[in-house]
Amino acid sequence: MATAVNRQFRLKSRPVGRLKPSDFDLVEAPIPKAGAGQAVAKLLYLSLDPTNRIWVTEQESYLPPVQIGEVMRGGGLAQIVESQRPDYAVGDLITGLTGWQEYALIDDAAMVQLIPKGLPVPLPALMGVLGVTGLTAYFGLLDIGQPRAGETVVVSAAAGATGSVAGQIAKLKGCRVVGIAGGAEKCAWLTRELGFDAAVDYKAADFPARLRAACPAGVDVNFENVGGAIMDTVMEQMNLNGRVALCGMISGYNSGEPMRGRFDLILTKRLHVQGFIVLDFVSRFAEGAMQLAQWLMEGKLVHRDTIVDGFEQAPTALNLLFDGGNVGKLLVKVADPA
Amino acid sequence: MATAVNRQFRLKSRPVGRLKPSDFDLVEAPIPKAGAGQAVAKLLYLSLDPTNRIWVTEQESYLPPVQIGEVMRGGGLAQIVESQRPDYAVGDLITGLTGWQEYALIDDAAMVQLIPKGLPVPLPALMGVLGVTGLTAYFGLLDIGQPRAGETVVVSAAAGATGSVAGQIAKLKGCRVVGIAGGAEKCAWLTRELGFDAAVDYKAADFPARLRAACPAGVDVNFENVGGAIMDTVMEQMNLNGRVALCGMISGYNSGEPMRGRFDLILTKRLHVQGFIVLDFVSRFAEGAMQLAQWLMEGKLVHRDTIVDGFEQAPTALNLLFDGGNVGKLLVKVADPA
Repeated sequence: MATAVNRQFRLKSRPVGRLKPSDFDLVEAPIPKAGAGQAVAKLLYLSLDPTNRIWVTEQESYLPPVQIGEVMRGGGLAQIVESQRPDYAVGDLITGLTGWQEYALIDDAAMVQLIPKGLPVPLPALMGVLGVTGLTAYFGLLDIGQPRAGETVVVSAAAGATGSVAGQIAKLKGCRVVGIAGGAEKCAWLTRELGFDAAVDYKAADFPARLRAACPAGVDVNFENVGGAIMDTVMEQMNLNGRVALCGMISGYNSGEPMRGRFDLILTKRLHVQGFIVLDFVSRFAEGAMQLAQWLMEGKLVHRDTIVDGFEQAPTALNLLFDGGNVGKLLVKVADPA
Repeated sequence: MATAVNRQFRLKSRPVGRLKPSDFDLVEAPIPKAGAGQAVAKLLYLSLDPTNRIWVTEQESYLPPVQIGEVMRGGGLAQIVESQRPDYAVGDLITGLTGWQEYALIDDAAMVQLIPKGLPVPLPALMGVLGVTGLTAYFGLLDIGQPRAGETVVVSAAAGATGSVAGQIAKLKGCRVVGIAGGAEKCAWLTRELGFDAAVDYKAADFPARLRAACPAGVDVNFENVGGAIMDTVMEQMNLNGRVALCGMISGYNSGEPMRGRFDLILTKRLHVQGFIVLDFVSRFAEGAMQLAQWLMEGKLVHRDTIVDGFEQAPTALNLLFDGGNVGKLLVKVADPA
């Protein structure tokens, strides 16, 4: 349903701990008008990602912190509704950093890209398995983790958007894949529908012993999304010369404290630990997207989305990521396409 | 001076905190006799290294822990005094894991190698700059750190055996080299005699600010020997895509606690952290030794040794490493060569 105004979440104060709606001002701005070289896009979906939580801290990361008063930074899928530039036509779909708002002004500085027309996939998949999430899994697992067939790959937050794709890619590459997730339902999804060799519930009291049983030959590659005690347990079970693709550490993002890990194990096991973000691979996005699309069409990649309805839910919905409340990609539905 | 017996330090109990002489039994064993395929080597020098402290913990590392009752594991330089094998003649020098004893029995399982005859360098250099220490610096800096000309390389424990060589190699490769060491005297040695661009005293109250002033373009490569708060400070000043060659973390070896570091910085700065030991490069030792020897002959590598006289001093002398009591390679002199 169209709105007569452009609702925006603007950062009001630096959140302490979990994100609260009161950390934002929900303001009603005018719908932007496209000037020369500009276009206006109407948001259809917001992508909710752990990195949103990092962006509202004061800490400098790969992008500057969102400033107080600014529209919250976030990924979105949007449709062009007005255009004064030749590369975007009304009706085209774009994805990128649209921000938490109902309408985004697109100019040369906007970090968005056009989605090819006519892809036979549902819109949410364009934000998840075929979007930045899928690309993160693709490059992080293959380029940073460098798994070889027959090796054991452990993925934490394995029922999440990135982990679920990373684990499936590792299976496609001939690895033994063990997922870590919270609760029996998610674990069952991983082994029954996604083809993981095993899934281990980190909430189990004997989690370390269960992980060891699932990884009888030790762990060669850790695709790390969680950090904290779960990461420590995986690190303890890694083999000599193992690789850690450090994708995220969601367990620590609400704490505001430095997140630490076992450097002694890096030393004694000669591990290779590397942080990455998907933007490091921007020059190879086309390669990754083509491969992911092909696997998806061939039925080799299963995905699921958790969709929260209503733009105004964004701040609250983000906490689902930290509570284990989502399976697969977490999205906020803002509007239907035209 | 020859002894009629073979004195040995045998591990008596697992040390807690600093090494104490009472953690060992100093026993008098018979001098071994060479059987078929064996040789007997008389120790001239013991090499004292931070890793000795790790070997007496219960923790499995790249070698199994020294067991209670076993001769303490350690590197040594020794001279063959009896041989029943064709590859070793009386008078030959060998180096390797001889153990803390005055005579070592050499067989096929011994981890030792022959030193080429007639090298025009003093014996201590064969254990330091031309030995395992120098090779650790060479492969760790070049293969793990991958410094490029013009980059800033920081070396901690820079006045130590490995750090002093690593920093000089980085200078030879065209880098800006900043050493971290304890006290004005060591810092002066680094800049005046070894050619470091700057040296920073970690005992200074404003150490982080001093390091920042010495690294105006940030840190691209960290050759890490120390761990703890010093490592944290360097990590905070690293540039995007920086590399950490994790050689050791001596500040934590006496604590018995897991040694942790800033995984959040690995993530946000996309750092590449890799642990290594020199044994990973054993197939390339000849390459490294030739290059180090060439630089040494050309006067491009300066070295200094700290030599403690007397076999019985070994356990006490090891603590010099943890107290900052040595400059360059720390050795115990056991006997003169024949």
